[in-house]
Amino acid sequence: MAKIITISREFGSGGRKIAELTAQKLGYNYYDKEIINSAAEKSGLSKNIINEVGEYASSTNSLLFNLSISNSLGGGNMSMYDHVFTAQTKVIKQYSDEGNCVILGRCADYILRDREDCLHVFIHADMESRIKRIVEEYKEDTASPEKLLKEKDKRRRVYYKNYTGQNWGDINNYHIVLDSGYIGIEECAEIIARLAKQ
Amino acid sequence: MAKIITISREFGSGGRKIAELTAQKLGYNYYDKEIINSAAEKSGLSKNIINEVGEYASSTNSLLFNLSISNSLGGGNMSMYDHVFTAQTKVIKQYSDEGNCVILGRCADYILRDREDCLHVFIHADMESRIKRIVEEYKEDTASPEKLLKEKDKRRRVYYKNYTGQNWGDINNYHIVLDSGYIGIEECAEIIARLAKQ
Repeated sequence: MAKIITISREFGSGGRKIAELTAQKLGYNYYDKEIINSAAEKSGLSKNIINEVGEYASSTNSLLFNLSISNSLGGGNMSMYDHVFTAQTKVIKQYSDEGNCVILGRCADYILRDREDCLHVFIHADMESRIKRIVEEYKEDTASPEKLLKEKDKRRRVYYKNYTGQNWGDINNYHIVLDSGYIGIEECAEIIARLAKQ
Repeated sequence: MAKIITISREFGSGGRKIAELTAQKLGYNYYDKEIINSAAEKSGLSKNIINEVGEYASSTNSLLFNLSISNSLGGGNMSMYDHVFTAQTKVIKQYSDEGNCVILGRCADYILRDREDCLHVFIHADMESRIKRIVEEYKEDTASPEKLLKEKDKRRRVYYKNYTGQNWGDINNYHIVLDSGYIGIEECAEIIARLAKQ
């Protein structure tokens, strides 16, 4: 029986929906936006900033986020990114100590890697399914959804590498990797919930 | 409903056992040694050679296998490796045309990539589980099982890259990737069979 399920995912793969459904099926707590809210409280930074720098390396247009923040935030010489990562790490460890839960993204697989009661999941999908999802469901308004997805992938990959030293989507970091485009959202959640109950 | 299941696997992950069990559960044909036998017939090469060069790049000790074979085998200027890969490809396509089956290894995921009735699976496991398996079940007699496994991984990786242009174990090539060390052999087969019936 896995007490904690971490779900990492490609943008547009439906990982958030799968995480919600899995938590429902198991009667587990589900943590996503709660991590942002709680990390904002702990760090003194705004939710918007945590949302922006908590999973993505900076794009070329947001170099501002790489600037060091002042000592007044308790971050010493840490960059904004380091400060947010530290706050998120504390929050994720706290939630995992509180018991049965599903945690979405934010390097939780890495942060909780030494716990034996975790099931680590990665969700991906083919480009066509992801484009369909971000246009129809997320209502992304972009002339080139494929370009947007590739940019998001790249920024998550760089962020993950920077804070974990591991490669994002490397099979060795996960117990199960699912293609939600082929398998479907509902069945992905069913497989994960079933596995967690083992 | 997936008619064809390809199972790729790390050496020592129990992928063969999982493939056999999956075929049993579904009542599908199972192809493993049959590919070697049939490719031997088609190519005029011995089963031992096909077994040796059909999934692994050469180790430094077997450069012999890289030598070109003579025209008398119908291979033109192809190397032994190319000749075996071509024969295996024909056999795998033939089996897949004949209907419901589970095919183990031999780049079948790549060879059948354009068929829509395939479920592509990759099985891996942590080093500790794989060492236990090769020592206790495969009876590998080696002073350094970890070194043996790393060498096998490397040779399969190079072979796969050479013939497919893709990276071995890259999540984008598979619909589901399972850690058999965590999940267990029986449950892996159960998950795959269930998914194939969708």
